[in-house]
Amino acid sequence: MALIVQKYGGTSVGSPERIKNVARKVEKFRAQGHQVVVVVSAMSGETNRLIALTKEVATNPSPRELDVVVSTGEQVTIGLLCMALEDIGVPAKSYTGGQVKILTDSLHTKARILNIDEAPIRKDLDEGKVVVVAGFQGVDEHGSITTLGRGGSDTTGVALAAALKADECQIYTDVDGVYTTDPRIVPEARKLDTITFEEMLEMASLGSKVLQIRSVEFAGKYKVKLRVLSSFEEGGEGTLITVEEDTNMEQPVISGIAFARDEAKLTVVGAPDKPGIAYQILGPVAEANIDVDMIIQNVGHDGTTDFSFTVARGDLAKAVKVLEGVQEHIGARAIESDNTMCKVSIVGVGMRSHPGVASKMFRTLAEEGINIQMISTSEIKISVAIDEKYLELAVRVLHKAFGLDAQA
Amino acid sequence: MALIVQKYGGTSVGSPERIKNVARKVEKFRAQGHQVVVVVSAMSGETNRLIALTKEVATNPSPRELDVVVSTGEQVTIGLLCMALEDIGVPAKSYTGGQVKILTDSLHTKARILNIDEAPIRKDLDEGKVVVVAGFQGVDEHGSITTLGRGGSDTTGVALAAALKADECQIYTDVDGVYTTDPRIVPEARKLDTITFEEMLEMASLGSKVLQIRSVEFAGKYKVKLRVLSSFEEGGEGTLITVEEDTNMEQPVISGIAFARDEAKLTVVGAPDKPGIAYQILGPVAEANIDVDMIIQNVGHDGTTDFSFTVARGDLAKAVKVLEGVQEHIGARAIESDNTMCKVSIVGVGMRSHPGVASKMFRTLAEEGINIQMISTSEIKISVAIDEKYLELAVRVLHKAFGLDAQA
Repeated sequence: MALIVQKYGGTSVGSPERIKNVARKVEKFRAQGHQVVVVVSAMSGETNRLIALTKEVATNPSPRELDVVVSTGEQVTIGLLCMALEDIGVPAKSYTGGQVKILTDSLHTKARILNIDEAPIRKDLDEGKVVVVAGFQGVDEHGSITTLGRGGSDTTGVALAAALKADECQIYTDVDGVYTTDPRIVPEARKLDTITFEEMLEMASLGSKVLQIRSVEFAGKYKVKLRVLSSFEEGGEGTLITVEEDTNMEQPVISGIAFARDEAKLTVVGAPDKPGIAYQILGPVAEANIDVDMIIQNVGHDGTTDFSFTVARGDLAKAVKVLEGVQEHIGARAIESDNTMCKVSIVGVGMRSHPGVASKMFRTLAEEGINIQMISTSEIKISVAIDEKYLELAVRVLHKAFGLDAQA
Repeated sequence: MALIVQKYGGTSVGSPERIKNVARKVEKFRAQGHQVVVVVSAMSGETNRLIALTKEVATNPSPRELDVVVSTGEQVTIGLLCMALEDIGVPAKSYTGGQVKILTDSLHTKARILNIDEAPIRKDLDEGKVVVVAGFQGVDEHGSITTLGRGGSDTTGVALAAALKADECQIYTDVDGVYTTDPRIVPEARKLDTITFEEMLEMASLGSKVLQIRSVEFAGKYKVKLRVLSSFEEGGEGTLITVEEDTNMEQPVISGIAFARDEAKLTVVGAPDKPGIAYQILGPVAEANIDVDMIIQNVGHDGTTDFSFTVARGDLAKAVKVLEGVQEHIGARAIESDNTMCKVSIVGVGMRSHPGVASKMFRTLAEEGINIQMISTSEIKISVAIDEKYLELAVRVLHKAFGLDAQA
């Protein structure tokens, strides 16, 4: 008998029929003798409907009251799922975030979990009940309802699994696991049986939107065994996200290829090459609430340097405006921008112990005539910025070169 | 400065625009220096939408989970109203039933209020905030969400007014007060400036659906000054429901005429006239969950009696079936039924001190050739069952005969 926390997202509970499906899925696990805690999101579309209502009554809704309104979405789902479970003979009990209770700080709309009182849940489980908890929400020390921000239901699931020392936290979604890359670009992409937390973090932050980054961090920190599975396909094992790399097996050097479209590059040309220049350029950019991704400062000559960084393409115009002020202030020669960029990354814990991964990546791209505009690396990731038109080609050739293609 | 509890029903908060209207209304009271606590229902249609969802997932939804789902309706409204208030510069804070907390018993879907902790509300009021409380809901000793049943928002308003010792509880609705009778039937009907709790109870139970009976009982018990007002018309004084009759004024003998359509009469003909017969007849009817209204047992002769009672017309077929079983058991001669009945009642505390009210009523009806089929009386009410086709005529002539017509 295992204790399993299962999280079902908005699409998985998007209609009464789908909620009944989830109930049947949960029943199966229970029939195998497992204790099951279920975390659910709001039915798909519901959160947006509620937010639209708030915009109709107030130009600038109070965050506290926004949480009061938006948190009803998950509350409806927990009630409906418990009814559906009881309707097929499975005893069940629902908990809102405040009822558990999931104690958070008071940062409404993006609260962080401080503590979970798991005792009442454990009591219900021992009585043979399935426990259904509203994801995405908690309560602060004043008793006010808080929400964890979009995607917070994954975090609720992982946090509950950690608090209950669950054997596994299963995240049900509309894909059947984590892939070596996007199968829409590389048909040979393979589902990974396992991936490490570090790799998953790099994959997630690079645009593989299977799991919320925060929940992966949380799972890594508390060593929660996390598994991504499909809500809609039966019998799959999904992808297990593990704390440690599997040293018993011949690990591939690279686990996956991630990519991000819609990047844009900015270069401050001929900036004075002196200490503090990076802060003088990026400080105003950060103040304007623009997220910066890759940052490259070339070695200077003649006392000047070229300083480049990438931003989301939607932020380009705003960033250019900010830099024009900076240019005057620091006395740089020009501001250049390029809005046809994309980023391709190879990710894998194996590269730590395998030298030559970077040069293999660069050679592979060079053989296809793809020019690399920027490079940035971490311990388990190498990212390159290239012209967007080469994105699919780059992903395909790298996927093949690093031996990720499925066996024919 | 007064402390006022205001309750707005589903129609009054039925759209974002109407919620903004309520915010402006509340702002006006606050600008006059009053402290205001607002109780709101779910937006009109919302509760039915939620109940429909529950019916799609379960054939027999668990009452506990039904309350979890349905209570979200009011939760959305409190958040929206607070946002709307803050948007026009009025500091506000929302409370769910559980947050107040409104402690109830555990009778899900029809819980009764046991206690209200008014301390946090008083603190917010003292800080200059408007407090917005979700009507219709509470929390039981186990922390489970409960609801008070349909119309429970009125009860929440009155209970809060009692707990806070408010100066007045104002119930905003889509009529501008309590009328002497339905103006759709008698155009001369007048709005009453005051009515006693006892009279209001009789009027409410007889089909004037302005206030929930339970909230009126509650207000009477705790001596809460209750006022019914229109949400949509400005400046009206509504109708004040008072604890004691106004002895300073020349009270009319009768305050109003109530009526109920869709009644049906059943008669057990030739039942043995012996002790226990009423129970033998009505016991099985009650067991079948059929509400009985008027009950008449005529004096018997020849050792038998005719026993008549009225039920809602929708229950007639079921009641006849039950009585057919009873007939055989007790040896009665026949079961007769009549589904063209209605009930007309005159209500007024003045009749206590004015003899001759009943005979005036009967004479007035007789003069119009209206046959009275049954009569039942209480201290402040006389009801007659008559043929439905005479309903409007009876109400009109009684309204005039008892001096209720508005002065021309």
